[in-house]
Parts: sequence; C-alpha cells; structure tokens
Amino acid sequence: MFEFDILQQEGRARRATFRTPHGTVTTPMFMPVGTQGTVKGISPQELLDIGSQIVLANTYHLMLRPGEQLVAAHGGLPGFTAYPGPFLTDSGGFQVMSLGHMRKITEQGVTFKSHLDGSRVELTPERSVEVQEALGADVIMAFDECPPYPAEPLYLQRSLERTVRWLERCLEAKTREDQALFAIVQGGTSGELREQSLALTLPFATPGFAIGGLAVGEPKEEMFPAVALTTGRLPAHKPRYLMGVGHPEDLIAGVALGVDMFDCVYPTRTGRFGYALTDDGRLNLNSSAPRRQLEPIDSGCDCYACRSYTRAYLAHLIRAEEMLAPRMLSLHNLRYLHRLMARAGDALQQGTFFNWATAWGERYFRQEVPAWFQKALETGAGI
Amino acid sequence: MFEFDILQQEGRARRATFRTPHGTVTTPMFMPVGTQGTVKGISPQELLDIGSQIVLANTYHLMLRPGEQLVAAHGGLPGFTAYPGPFLTDSGGFQVMSLGHMRKITEQGVTFKSHLDGSRVELTPERSVEVQEALGADVIMAFDECPPYPAEPLYLQRSLERTVRWLERCLEAKTREDQALFAIVQGGTSGELREQSLALTLPFATPGFAIGGLAVGEPKEEMFPAVALTTGRLPAHKPRYLMGVGHPEDLIAGVALGVDMFDCVYPTRTGRFGYALTDDGRLNLNSSAPRRQLEPIDSGCDCYACRSYTRAYLAHLIRAEEMLAPRMLSLHNLRYLHRLMARAGDALQQGTFFNWATAWGERYFRQEVPAWFQKALETGAGI
Repeated sequence: MFEFDILQQEGRARRATFRTPHGTVTTPMFMPVGTQGTVKGISPQELLDIGSQIVLANTYHLMLRPGEQLVAAHGGLPGFTAYPGPFLTDSGGFQVMSLGHMRKITEQGVTFKSHLDGSRVELTPERSVEVQEALGADVIMAFDECPPYPAEPLYLQRSLERTVRWLERCLEAKTREDQALFAIVQGGTSGELREQSLALTLPFATPGFAIGGLAVGEPKEEMFPAVALTTGRLPAHKPRYLMGVGHPEDLIAGVALGVDMFDCVYPTRTGRFGYALTDDGRLNLNSSAPRRQLEPIDSGCDCYACRSYTRAYLAHLIRAEEMLAPRMLSLHNLRYLHRLMARAGDALQQGTFFNWATAWGERYFRQEVPAWFQKALETGAGI
Repeated sequence: MFEFDILQQEGRARRATFRTPHGTVTTPMFMPVGTQGTVKGISPQELLDIGSQIVLANTYHLMLRPGEQLVAAHGGLPGFTAYPGPFLTDSGGFQVMSLGHMRKITEQGVTFKSHLDGSRVELTPERSVEVQEALGADVIMAFDECPPYPAEPLYLQRSLERTVRWLERCLEAKTREDQALFAIVQGGTSGELREQSLALTLPFATPGFAIGGLAVGEPKEEMFPAVALTTGRLPAHKPRYLMGVGHPEDLIAGVALGVDMFDCVYPTRTGRFGYALTDDGRLNLNSSAPRRQLEPIDSGCDCYACRSYTRAYLAHLIRAEEMLAPRMLSLHNLRYLHRLMARAGDALQQGTFFNWATAWGERYFRQEVPAWFQKALETGAGI
C-alpha cells in the first residue's frame, strides 16, 4: 500500500503512480477540494467523468458540522459523499488559523471559537488524527501551524519546531494502517528555515511529504525558490504535495520543480465568480464580449460545458444568476486543471516536458513570461 | 406532425402519444420549467436521464434577456440550451401580469415596465407569436390574459372575450408550420364563464387546448370542478394541458379528469427550499430528524440522489448551504413527478388507473383523503 512508482523523470519533473486503498492514481495531479464533503456544485459522477483522482475534504469543517461520527457512520467519506475513490483530509490546522475566532496556540494545540456557533473547540495533534481516522481518508495530514506571511523569523522558527513536535504526536496517535500520514515541511520563504524544517522533518520518513506555508500571500519570486529548495531535499521516491496551489501557471512551475500533487479551491471559486480557465489565460464571462460569442469556452476542451454550450449561453446564465452557471464553470475549470496535468504527464512520457511547458507558458502569458516562471522551468530542467 | 393518439382510456383518464418535430412524447406527463432557458440547477443530460419529455421556456423572460434573436442565432431553444428534445413556450401573458410593473392592458395588448431594467415593453398577440417563432419551441401558446383570483364576473367575461380575439390574431400572425399553437380556455372558476370561453374557443380547432386561469389561488374545491367541466367539453382527440399545476395530488386528480400535460416550477422550487416529494407526502429535510437518517429520501426512487445519498448527507448539504443540495432535491422532485406520471400510465395500460390512484391517495393523504380529490376521481371514473 502507498507505493509510489516513478514512471518517467525529466530534470526534476516526474510522472508516477501512487497506490492508495481506494485506487491507484497517476501524478502529477490536481486534487479538487470538497471542503464540507462536496466539491461545490459538482456530483461524484461528474468528478469521475472529468478525471478527478483524489478529492480533498476539510477536517475543521467536518468535525464542526456534521461531526466526524456521522461521517464514520456512513463508513467514512466515500460512503458519506458517494465519491468512491481516494480522499485526502487536511489536519484542520490551516482552517483554524483562517476561520476560527479567538484562537490561542499553545504547545498542547489550538483552542478557538467555531465560526459556526462560537462554541469553544480544541484541536490538538491527537484530536486531529482522531477526526481524520473517523473521516477515513486514504491520505491524512500532520497537524501543523501554517504561519501567515509575513512573519518574524523567530516566530517562524519556533512554529516550525513545534510543528515537528506535533508531527511526532500525530504519528504516536495514529492507529489505522490503511491511512498514509504526510508530514508538512514549513519555514516560510526563508531558505535557512526551510533547511531547518527539512532537517527536523525528514527523519520521520513518512510515506509522503507536503510543502506547507506557501501560497499565503508571498510573491511568486519568493515562493518558487522555497519550493525548489524543498523539492531538492525531499526523498525522490515519495510523493510531494504542494498545499493550496491551483493556478495553472503555478501547477506547471510546480511540476517542473518536482511536485506531484496540488490542491486549491481556485478552479471552483473562480468558476462561481464567472471565470473560465484556458490556455490563453482566464476568460471573464461577466464581460460583455462573450454575450454574443457562439463558440464554446474552449474548443479543445472535452468537458460537458464545452461540448454543450456557447459562451453566449453561459454568459446569459451568469447574468440571469442561474445555478447552472457556477456549476458548469466549476466543472470546466476542474477539467481544465485535470487535462493540464494529464498533458504534462503525456509530455513527460515523451520526454518533452520542458519544451511543452515553455510553449504553454508563452501562449498563456502572451509572450510576456514572468521571470519567476522562467526560472522555475530552468531550475527544474537543471539549466 | 402533432398527431395525438390515444393508446388507452379508462373513464376520462387516458394514455396517449403526442408527436412533435423534436420527438414523440407519451402522456400523461409533467413538463419541467426552464424559465430562463435552464431548468434551475439541472443539466439537459440529467433531464434526459430522469425521463423529461418536453421542457418549458418562458417567452417573457427570454425576450427581455438575452433577447429572442440570440436564441434564434443558436437555431432556437435546443441549440441554445443543449436540450435536444421538444420545447413548449408560454405566451408571456402570465408573466407580464405577475412580474411586469405599471402594466396596462388594452385591446391592442399589454404595455409594462421590465422587471429587469424598468424599460417600457409592449407585448401583443403578434409580438408574442414573433418571439415564440424565434425561440422555436414545438408547442407555442396563444397570448392570453390570466385574470387573478378572485375577479369580478364582468371583468372575467370581458377578459375571456378579448383573449379569444387575441387568439384569432395569434393564429393570423403565425407563420411556422412546425409549431403547434394551443388555445387557452379561460373563465376562472365560474361554470358559466368556462362554458362561454369554450364556446368561443373550440371553433378555432387548434391542435391542442390548455386550461388556463386556474391554480392562481382558488381553493381546490373550486378548481377541480372547473377542470372537470372543461375536459368534459374539450375534443377527445387533442392534447389537454392544465397550466401551472405541479403538486403530486393535483396531477393525479388532473389525470383522472382527462388532462394530458402539466407544468409547474413547484418541484424545483420546493427542492431549493429543502423539500423532497414522496408517496408519503413532502419530506422536510430542513427539520432535525433527517440529519441522522442513513436511508435515502425514497428507497423506491431510481434518481441519482436516491441512489447515492442518505437523508443525513442531504440534510448536511442544506445546513452547509451547499449548491449540491438544491441540485439534488430538484432532480429527485422532477424524477418523482415523471415517475408518478409513468406509474399512472402503467396503471392505464393495465386498466387499473382508478384503483391505483385511490390507493396512492390513501397513502399520500395518510387516510385523510380530501373530498375534492375523492370527487375528482369519481368524476373521472364516471361514478
């Protein structure tokens, strides 16, 4: 179980299979986020249709509502949500920081007031593992602190050290053999602190490693060197998961640097706001031009929305505030990211990944390829 | 084209096929409402999956936004909405009354201010037909006035006479051979006025007739005798459409009285509010009991929601305000009404419709069958 087999490698980029109790998935891959036990507006059948492989669910949300015991009574997340494939749950740490009120961090864990009813809740490494075991995902995450950006170096250092002690307690608390617990490397954008976190975390030899503490507001010029440093030190034969990253250009740069797994609410959220992802950048269907365009969002896309609808129809749905609009744009955007990762995988199979990624970037950025993207590709290619 | 063939008859109730340019449908049937060119939250593929046969669209809404010319540029409603089957458009008259501001009715037609932008719009019999021809539905409706309930008899009489003059103008204006225009019988709940409307309307010998002016707030004790009077006078070999009716008990009573077609926003609207239709009445998924129930809405239902989800999961989605909740409850409710009409058709095939309908009513009303329902079944059965 949890075997990770690299099928192709080109520079740092790799294509691999990752075996989980609910199925074997192929990386690089984007994982849709089903915060409250549903990818917003999308059915499990549609997730299967568009090629989703692992679905995320949020420990913080599900422990507060409906409570992890109800999910366990359904046999875990697949029974509860009707998505039959693998799941990944986060630890709840990140949401406590972003959604909990009056939160207080101690060595023991975090206490906070629920954003739903203001009740006082405690989340500790042990409690996070207990909830994640009840939810029953295939991959579970160590309870960590994700500090904000910017943060003082001293705070970052104390936090990353505590996160390592919490990791140890998570592993101690863990009882299920059919769940892989991934450790999370922290350290913000500081090379020195990343190195410290890596030195303290790698000895735990968890079956996979996440890169945390990034995509929290820092510039990409700082984020991707931190990714590069981390993937350069992580063990080659274990999956690497860059948390909270979902913009197309960030996925390509991440794959170039050797990342295998990504997740983000971005494709569904931007879809609900009326935006569609394409190789030519983000299409704004709230603007006036699409209202008269009789072509699909993307004639090269095989999603239901692109096979069925014109831009004019979808723009009409948005103006009419029809539920089908966020549904169809979310579906298209998820399919776009799944196809993007499949295309990256195809290029890796053919040994043409860096050429393909360069060409993709030139079209996406309309010839104005930013330096951070160029640099990520060069670092990944070993230039 | 537009052949209506009665396959079985039992008392007044009948099962028939109705041929349209976009396909042959089987009656009795319920038609989902796609007001703005989409059945709220439901994809065309899902409509096909659950057995929808004809989809309604609203002339008033589509002429105001996006404008009928954009729909025509897509080749009409099937190209615009991606639903490949037959459509029916209403005339716009009803919505002008319920949504238009500052409306003024004259012999010429109706002027009103758009509920979207306040602009002054005129709708006449000729304009209604023009818009409906651009939308391209298989069945189009005569431009009529649907008076409120209650209304003065004198007003009702003048209105129904004007509606007949408008019918004549609609037929005059109509140019497309591939669209069937249905006349609408008015007259409120007055037997005398219904008779007058019938006497004036029947000579036009349109390919189908609608029963209008009902389900606008009158008690069922007044509504169903008006239905019974009308179906008793309509020609046998043409389809009969009871407008705006969609409660399960009203469909059964209507079928008993010889109605073939129904439409209503009820199943999707009540679904968005968290209610599910079942043979045992309406299930309120907002209440606390379903939150712990691990069974489906209806174990006898074959819809995606019932095959995939527990009541507890759906109740969680409602509390979490997740889009999948209204989507799944709308889907279930539409499927429930389609199955209800298919079951009525099966009973008609077996010559057991009135027995089946009586048993259905006893379960649905929990033994307390209302007199109006009982009376409708008796009238339909010829007792």
